[in-house]
Amino acid sequence: MSAKLLEGKRGIIFGALDENSIAWKVAQQANEHGAKFILTNAPVALRMGAINKLAEQTGSEVIPADATNMEDLENLFKQAEEKLGGKLDFVLHSIGMSINVRKGQHYTDLNYDWMAKGWDISAVSFHKVMQTAWKLDSMNEWGSIMALTYMAAQRTFPDYNDMADNKSYLESIARSFGYHWGVRNKVRVNTISQSPTATTAGSGVKGFDGFINYADKMSPLGNATADECAGYVISMFSDLTRKVTMQNLYHDGGFSNVGVSDAVMAQFMNNESE
Amino acid sequence: MSAKLLEGKRGIIFGALDENSIAWKVAQQANEHGAKFILTNAPVALRMGAINKLAEQTGSEVIPADATNMEDLENLFKQAEEKLGGKLDFVLHSIGMSINVRKGQHYTDLNYDWMAKGWDISAVSFHKVMQTAWKLDSMNEWGSIMALTYMAAQRTFPDYNDMADNKSYLESIARSFGYHWGVRNKVRVNTISQSPTATTAGSGVKGFDGFINYADKMSPLGNATADECAGYVISMFSDLTRKVTMQNLYHDGGFSNVGVSDAVMAQFMNNESE
Amino acid sequence: MSAKLLEGKRGIIFGALDENSIAWKVAQQANEHGAKFILTNAPVALRMGAINKLAEQTGSEVIPADATNMEDLENLFKQAEEKLGGKLDFVLHSIGMSINVRKGQHYTDLNYDWMAKGWDISAVSFHKVMQTAWKLDSMNEWGSIMALTYMAAQRTFPDYNDMADNKSYLESIARSFGYHWGVRNKVRVNTISQSPTATTAGSGVKGFDGFINYADKMSPLGNATADECAGYVISMFSDLTRKVTMQNLYHDGGFSNVGVSDAVMAQFMNNESE
Amino acid sequence: MSAKLLEGKRGIIFGALDENSIAWKVAQQANEHGAKFILTNAPVALRMGAINKLAEQTGSEVIPADATNMEDLENLFKQAEEKLGGKLDFVLHSIGMSINVRKGQHYTDLNYDWMAKGWDISAVSFHKVMQTAWKLDSMNEWGSIMALTYMAAQRTFPDYNDMADNKSYLESIARSFGYHWGVRNKVRVNTISQSPTATTAGSGVKGFDGFINYADKMSPLGNATADECAGYVISMFSDLTRKVTMQNLYHDGGFSNVGVSDAVMAQFMNNESE
Repeated sequence: MSAKLLEGKRGIIFGALDENSIAWKVAQQANEHGAKFILTNAPVALRMGAINKLAEQTGSEVIPADATNMEDLENLFKQAEEKLGGKLDFVLHSIGMSINVRKGQHYTDLNYDWMAKGWDISAVSFHKVMQTAWKLDSMNEWGSIMALTYMAAQRTFPDYNDMADNKSYLESIARSFGYHWGVRNKVRVNTISQSPTATTAGSGVKGFDGFINYADKMSPLGNATADECAGYVISMFSDLTRKVTMQNLYHDGGFSNVGVSDAVMAQFMNNESE
Repeated sequence: MSAKLLEGKRGIIFGALDENSIAWKVAQQANEHGAKFILTNAPVALRMGAINKLAEQTGSEVIPADATNMEDLENLFKQAEEKLGGKLDFVLHSIGMSINVRKGQHYTDLNYDWMAKGWDISAVSFHKVMQTAWKLDSMNEWGSIMALTYMAAQRTFPDYNDMADNKSYLESIARSFGYHWGVRNKVRVNTISQSPTATTAGSGVKGFDGFINYADKMSPLGNATADECAGYVISMFSDLTRKVTMQNLYHDGGFSNVGVSDAVMAQFMNNESE
Repeated sequence: MSAKLLEGKRGIIFGALDENSIAWKVAQQANEHGAKFILTNAPVALRMGAINKLAEQTGSEVIPADATNMEDLENLFKQAEEKLGGKLDFVLHSIGMSINVRKGQHYTDLNYDWMAKGWDISAVSFHKVMQTAWKLDSMNEWGSIMALTYMAAQRTFPDYNDMADNKSYLESIARSFGYHWGVRNKVRVNTISQSPTATTAGSGVKGFDGFINYADKMSPLGNATADECAGYVISMFSDLTRKVTMQNLYHDGGFSNVGVSDAVMAQFMNNESE
Repeated sequence: MSAKLLEGKRGIIFGALDENSIAWKVAQQANEHGAKFILTNAPVALRMGAINKLAEQTGSEVIPADATNMEDLENLFKQAEEKLGGKLDFVLHSIGMSINVRKGQHYTDLNYDWMAKGWDISAVSFHKVMQTAWKLDSMNEWGSIMALTYMAAQRTFPDYNDMADNKSYLESIARSFGYHWGVRNKVRVNTISQSPTATTAGSGVKGFDGFINYADKMSPLGNATADECAGYVISMFSDLTRKVTMQNLYHDGGFSNVGVSDAVMAQFMNNESE
């Protein structure tokens, strides 16, 4: 590829667990596009994952940070600026986890401690990341901050459980903080609302394979893959999208604006006609 | 008024602090429409407010409950069913508070403990109320559960601060839980997104008077008052709106769908032409 | 029913073809709620339908009018005010027709003359009705103007064809004209986005029965019926909803905010495993 | 610029009138990104504008076509494929005009012939362009079709008049036709909802300068310029955004998701206190 969109840009990428992670693909493509960046994840995720391999591939360093911990975040941003040699141009937040989902608690029988923890990890962490960068004045003008989200924030997918509410909160943070970033620093903040993706995190949701198939048949272009999502993230980090901010951007093959597809209706009707 | 829309209906009304409260007006109108209900609020709010006066006016009882406390809520719903003589037909959630707003913390400098507390009070409480009612099977078929919200959940009003994010979470809960209530009990769950209203709670927001004036000039019908909001709530509790669920309903004189009004443009341009 | 919400109110109801029509049900319920009104429809529809029966039932008069014809509309509004004895409080627009749908033209092979005719009948007619009422100053303060629409205006249902685009235009007219009505006359304008309904008009759409079943399974409360829709219209004509304007209100058992229901996923998966 | 995103891609660009046109900027940037394309506009616009200069600059040919005329469009697409040496990868529709706006007709006093003409030019033309390309099977897989629109399709800006309704229809066409393009050809269709832009077309709207200033102050990043819009269009034509379809994408410095900015409130309050 000759088109280098992120030449000279510096950033931080949260949430690259393994090769299935969208953040992993973003790191690979950002590297191909000439960016320099720090990889980060929670210490426990670093142990489980294979992030060092990615760091090697992309010539980047790993700095552990629990994204709910303000000291970790402050250390991360300070070190990142130092190691990368300047302020940052992009940040990717790809973090999410619901204990209630993992433990199989039904939405009508939630454990509120788990809800609070999931909210902190999945949503508040995005505020914490930005508040840290804000206070340290870490972002260059026309920088781009992105988080990944899912359409359950707008419409109910019963198995998505309290992650739906977390994603709503996350998207709201993007708008609320995006306003201030825009006014002070000409920095933009957006979320990408991605097709259901067979990442290690996503696969925790019950009946996920069937649902991926459903979403695929509902989407005129089919589901968006992790790789394609990374491409979209790159475009949002590039200078081509400088005036897009406070938006939630659907990257889903059209799913969000389809009432019902012929393919889904056909399968739905299938045995009705028998 | 001869038209009694809530004859024979039973409910619980959260959040009637004083005569400025929307919940107060709802109680008055619900009473006129023939409903029986329990009034409730947090013990501290009961002391500050004048709820006993309202209870007298409407022939209703007050049961204190901290809406973040599951034991309080369980006690409330059990007693309510007992005292009212049957399952419930409506619940109004009119609860919200941000310590960060009260203390004047800027959105880029939030205190996270306060954020968590405000989230619990303003948003999670709605889930707790519904989870309690769900487990006790307290709602009649075709019952109606409502919460009050504000458009900051969709668009940024900088002074609204972390309440914006709380309202997003609240609205998401309405959808998420609304799905389950619909399937199991034919119960509907909606939120009303009300004009800025000069309630005791609302007045905590900085520059609120100027903003109310702005919203009024932006809205073709002017701002909706607390009394008018109560009327809308009554219509949503009545049998006329049984199939409306999982919706966020703007009650704002048109504000939400106006790009800019002639009245606001005129004032905006005013000294430009001088 | 003892609750009379429209006592003393006067209006015009467009589009009551036969007993399956939503407008027919609105007329019946408006009558029960104490309203006086004129029934109207295009001459050809009057011949096909049974509107005289409805007129008798509800003690109302029928005035023929082609809603795309400005002279007819002017005559209608003048006569209505005269016969009803004053300005109007409500108008219902329940008109829609696509020749491309009827003739089975695919969306990618539209006949543009038919498109223009369908647009005029289904969407522009709403503007013509309001422009007529505007010029004649026919509406009382706090009057309510409603049109019926469908969610295809937001999301694609392939068989809905160019009616989707017509409904988008119709909803836009509601906002655009609603602004002016609000400012000048305190009149509100809204659309109700109704579940697929087995009216005589709706049944022209291909595969409609299967689709109704699909929508019903997707909706936590099931599809909204024509009768229920009429109830919702009554609430929107009443004084309980005076500050709701320029809104598109989903009346669909929750369909619009469901990503996928368990019931639909179950049938979808079921057919897959065969 | 070294990053060439459209190398080897072929397209058609509608609506480059003069140097202020967004389409003009798109042509320039598409050329820099390695694309080959045909420029087109209505014969009358070709005479008024300076398109030959642009054609020279970008090494492209001009083929006149009235975008409401099916024969012209068929000729255009056939010639384009022939001259460019293959099927197309992108199409830009940047066409819009309201006679009612030009002639100063108020929205409540529209001329319906002019409305129909404006609708045909501004909205239906997009369907005609796509129906032509569909029938000729002119698009390559993963092609990208874009149209430019404005937020008046969602919220009322009184002076925008019937263009608001036209833009709603246009955006609906994008979704409706986008579905079919996706399923058959893996082609995506989107609209960009751009800040008010001082193009020759835009400047026809009353009070436009004041409004541009207002929008600029409301937008955290300020208004998006025509050049920046072109950049965004390039990203949407590139392979980085293949799975984005049926979307309306705000490119407006954040305007669409701001309730009110501090800058606008300050000026609003300022004028009040005088």
